[in-house]
Amino acid sequence: MKSFEFHIPTKIVFGEGKISLIGPYANKYGKKLMVVYGKGSIKKNGVYDKVIKSLNEQHLDFIEYPGVKSNPVLSHVNEGISLARQEKVDFILAVGGGSVIDEAKAIAAGLCYDGNVWDFYNGTAKIQEALPVLTILTIPATASEMNGGTVLSNEETRQKFGFIDEHLFPKLSILDPTATYSISPDYTAYGAVDAISHATEGYFTHDNNWYPVQDRIVESLVKTIMESTEIVLKKPDDYYGRATMMWAASLAWNGLTTSGVDGASVPCHMFAHVLGAFYDIAHGAALSIITPAWMQYKYKENIQRFAEFSANVFGLEGKNPDETAQTGIEALKNWFKKIGSPVSFKDAGIPEGDIEELSEGVLEIADLWQIKGYSKNNVKDILSLCL
Amino acid sequence: MKSFEFHIPTKIVFGEGKISLIGPYANKYGKKLMVVYGKGSIKKNGVYDKVIKSLNEQHLDFIEYPGVKSNPVLSHVNEGISLARQEKVDFILAVGGGSVIDEAKAIAAGLCYDGNVWDFYNGTAKIQEALPVLTILTIPATASEMNGGTVLSNEETRQKFGFIDEHLFPKLSILDPTATYSISPDYTAYGAVDAISHATEGYFTHDNNWYPVQDRIVESLVKTIMESTEIVLKKPDDYYGRATMMWAASLAWNGLTTSGVDGASVPCHMFAHVLGAFYDIAHGAALSIITPAWMQYKYKENIQRFAEFSANVFGLEGKNPDETAQTGIEALKNWFKKIGSPVSFKDAGIPEGDIEELSEGVLEIADLWQIKGYSKNNVKDILSLCL
Repeated sequence: MKSFEFHIPTKIVFGEGKISLIGPYANKYGKKLMVVYGKGSIKKNGVYDKVIKSLNEQHLDFIEYPGVKSNPVLSHVNEGISLARQEKVDFILAVGGGSVIDEAKAIAAGLCYDGNVWDFYNGTAKIQEALPVLTILTIPATASEMNGGTVLSNEETRQKFGFIDEHLFPKLSILDPTATYSISPDYTAYGAVDAISHATEGYFTHDNNWYPVQDRIVESLVKTIMESTEIVLKKPDDYYGRATMMWAASLAWNGLTTSGVDGASVPCHMFAHVLGAFYDIAHGAALSIITPAWMQYKYKENIQRFAEFSANVFGLEGKNPDETAQTGIEALKNWFKKIGSPVSFKDAGIPEGDIEELSEGVLEIADLWQIKGYSKNNVKDILSLCL
Repeated sequence: MKSFEFHIPTKIVFGEGKISLIGPYANKYGKKLMVVYGKGSIKKNGVYDKVIKSLNEQHLDFIEYPGVKSNPVLSHVNEGISLARQEKVDFILAVGGGSVIDEAKAIAAGLCYDGNVWDFYNGTAKIQEALPVLTILTIPATASEMNGGTVLSNEETRQKFGFIDEHLFPKLSILDPTATYSISPDYTAYGAVDAISHATEGYFTHDNNWYPVQDRIVESLVKTIMESTEIVLKKPDDYYGRATMMWAASLAWNGLTTSGVDGASVPCHMFAHVLGAFYDIAHGAALSIITPAWMQYKYKENIQRFAEFSANVFGLEGKNPDETAQTGIEALKNWFKKIGSPVSFKDAGIPEGDIEELSEGVLEIADLWQIKGYSKNNVKDILSLCL
């Protein structure tokens, strides 16, 4: 194993009814906060009322900052930074999914920085300080509630960049599975795809050393995410199904599956971010298109690993490792279809003609994230497999 | 899943060469520390020299407190508390295995308490404060480097008690696999048994709800610990083997396998602690005697779970679930034998005649830890299966 640091300072408070405890938990981070949320789904499912009641009971002074988009954008972050600075808030509370949490992190870091917050995303500045962020998770997918990652889109430059920084771990995250009962079937599916992608990217890309702890945890999480997705698509208020999916998604991208693993990278996320920057497409939907195409293109570089995935996750065995690997890729693609997530540009209404421009965006992220082995040609080939 | 809190504030620094960084890491916890260690194995394997050199380079003022026993004892803890108080140390550095770390935690908590530190162990007081503890792990087994647990023996009362408290998480733990190359084959085996017991106790005892995340991680860790043990028993300086075992043992008892699981308890540790209090026996050796006997006695209460263990860990399948479960128990017992850990009182030279007295000790811990379902009769029956 390669050397690593593992440190998750975030306190997870998990279970039904825990959202109503946000006031007492928040109390110790200051007197004034900004509550960041999206387009109002938390008002429909009752989460908003619980949060506001609990904050009021603790006599906390708060301002609200709604309107975070599914792919959070720089302009809205900048407005949030100005407002938070003007109102002199002590900390940020994100109530929502990964997008809301990512934007809250951007505001928390941007407020403590004199320059443009985008500098952190394009790699020209490093975070020195950030306000504390607390989260109440309503969509399991990105694991942003339990990691130091954030992703943001710059509308002007048509870039969607992300990075990880230790200052961005939330101090506290409340995970109440009942808050996820109202997630629509499509977004339930997209969340599952995202979590599976987080778990597997390192698994498919690491070097050929021996990582049985990490690889087996990956396989365990993928099987579990698949099972729990099928349960909740049939019965959206199945507590064990929602709880299992929620916890598995957090564990899929909190460092557990990649710590100590050498060579792990995130090529499918690299492609998916570009699709997210170009089109109005959910992150999970972009990943379910890219992932099978990427696997199909890449599996020959490590047939054994892809065959193990097929055998250990799907219980499949072909006549030879190549066939085993291929049937596993097909099985994953079919499963994405089965849960209603797109597996081609056509499924998602993405035009065929943008491949040239998309490939430039992909290479830009490859450069930024230092992902080796991608050229204009092979990126275009992979994108062509998505048609 | 039941509600839970998951919070591991410990920062893990993992990898070859990391011990020499202890000085810079320690610097921020104060100017004066107490270095706690055992009977001198760290002087033979070079770890001591690296630690002292790094502390000196940072001009840290330190006192040494060696002599921690394999089963750490209250009298030595009390002396350590007096010394640390007199010398006004700011924090404690434990260099060793679980026993050393457990004793360091006891000193760290006892120093901030006016009463007898044993009060924390017998449940009559709760920790309000503790000095910071840093650790350099040299024997993977207890996961004390990544949890809030501590176990201590009281020679006067012949009791070995343990408890978990959030104040006792180490601030920082350095895990260098090369520091474990010199562990003898028997202690390598005992460490593996302890880690397997930590992983499986909750798995075997939880209720019949659906815990696929936790159960699969348990199965993954057990398989991995077995594989890595076999590797390092053949080749003690196999880096990947030692690294894998070290990380797997930490994950086996840091909350990951039990968070959200209802009904999980630690009956085998309950028995093993009594053996440790009565005889000069290594903790892992006590567990390899107790565990198969306990499994044999208990499996009929949940044949399905034990059959799954047999199938998913050993790949065994009998004519029916009962047979599958039994062959799995036999396989685990045989594996303990194979790696050189005792599986009977006879193997360990424990006299047959103490069962009556031992059973009283077991019931005392059952009461303290609130483990239900144990009576004088069934405890004696389980102990009789150990002969």
